[in-house]
Amino acid sequence: MVLVSTRNPLNIGAAARAMSNFGFSQLRLVNPYDAAFRQATSAVGAADLMANAVAYKTVAEAVADCALVVGTTAVGKRNLHQPVHRLEQGANLIRKRLRSGNVALLFGSEKRGLSNDDFSHCHWLMRIPTGEKNISMNLGQAVAVCLYELARDAKVAGKLPKQELVTAGEMERITHVLLDALRASGYLDLRRIASSEERIRRLLRRTKFSAGDAESWLGMLRQILWKLKNGSQYSSDSNSYRLWCL
Amino acid sequence: MVLVSTRNPLNIGAAARAMSNFGFSQLRLVNPYDAAFRQATSAVGAADLMANAVAYKTVAEAVADCALVVGTTAVGKRNLHQPVHRLEQGANLIRKRLRSGNVALLFGSEKRGLSNDDFSHCHWLMRIPTGEKNISMNLGQAVAVCLYELARDAKVAGKLPKQELVTAGEMERITHVLLDALRASGYLDLRRIASSEERIRRLLRRTKFSAGDAESWLGMLRQILWKLKNGSQYSSDSNSYRLWCL
Repeated sequence: MVLVSTRNPLNIGAAARAMSNFGFSQLRLVNPYDAAFRQATSAVGAADLMANAVAYKTVAEAVADCALVVGTTAVGKRNLHQPVHRLEQGANLIRKRLRSGNVALLFGSEKRGLSNDDFSHCHWLMRIPTGEKNISMNLGQAVAVCLYELARDAKVAGKLPKQELVTAGEMERITHVLLDALRASGYLDLRRIASSEERIRRLLRRTKFSAGDAESWLGMLRQILWKLKNGSQYSSDSNSYRLWCL
Repeated sequence: MVLVSTRNPLNIGAAARAMSNFGFSQLRLVNPYDAAFRQATSAVGAADLMANAVAYKTVAEAVADCALVVGTTAVGKRNLHQPVHRLEQGANLIRKRLRSGNVALLFGSEKRGLSNDDFSHCHWLMRIPTGEKNISMNLGQAVAVCLYELARDAKVAGKLPKQELVTAGEMERITHVLLDALRASGYLDLRRIASSEERIRRLLRRTKFSAGDAESWLGMLRQILWKLKNGSQYSSDSNSYRLWCL
């Protein structure tokens, strides 16, 4: 990670924090504006990384030991003379090259980004696929997004454990207790019984109960049913609740 | 995008900037610490978004019209009771659900993240795959990384809409009536109240209620609740039902 002519030390700290989050370690700085950048409070959890950061005078020196140098850009109106890859594609190329040598990823200053002279040290350029409306990202956020993409695991993206649902037997037990509770509450008396029961069966089967939750549902419904059959201490407030059944 | 109890207005601005970068528009805030958040200078290029941001008192209100509510977490030492997906997988699920309804993505405060109470409003949780060494990300950077992942892979396949589910607002109404019924039935007295309520919230959010069925569920639960509060004609057979609660 090479930050070129960064103005705000807080952005250097934020970049260091993101590097630490995603497991990157070597921070290099070319001409930081503020010599006191090492004290940036934004480098939460990245103290080692800040202590070991190395400052250089020129881009050429900062990338001298790297086999691949990649510049970042928001593109925009500039005429670019180098290939520009979207981050998703560029990250693939970088990952491959990291197996055989060092790769430098360059970020420019907050105001102007990388200069054409900086670009001339790069093998190719990379852009974060922002919307057209606002292509200018905060430096710390841009660094975080690039490092996330480099660290992300394309293999896990597709796989997802499916939610296991209750078995038909458990569903039937839930159905019975709910129907008993509805009978005891008078709910079913207010409707034509036969089709109401079918309707409630279908309703329950449209509802997806997680496999591990069957016992909890049964426990709740059974307690409610027990209480319905064994009277209640409460008898006030009948009008307000009565309204709900209409 | 819902930011809960955010302390630093600069982070709200940074989140707005990232939303603008990746084409997201609705910013909601629950209890921001600083009332002057709309003046955050970090919202570069996101003035409309900040002007249209809406503040809410509670998470429940902020997510009421959303069919899917996703919480973010760095995981860590907390015991989590909900499924946690890596961002790569979670983003896939979110993209699918965005075709059929609103999705809320929740971020907690800089210091503590989301609380267990906040989590209980979520269907599942998502974590950014940081390294073990430093899992704590800056809020603005975490938002940028999540929105980048959601915006990447723009090849939206023209698939059929999936089953529509109840909104968070309907889910909350179901939750309230069920909790009232459980209280009236004595179910909650048998357990430690505070964590039982959170447990039941999570249980409900693991259960997938079809969108069209919310009123039916509410109708059934309200009738049951009414009956619980207004006594019962049945009082025999108490022993057999009592067994079920053990």
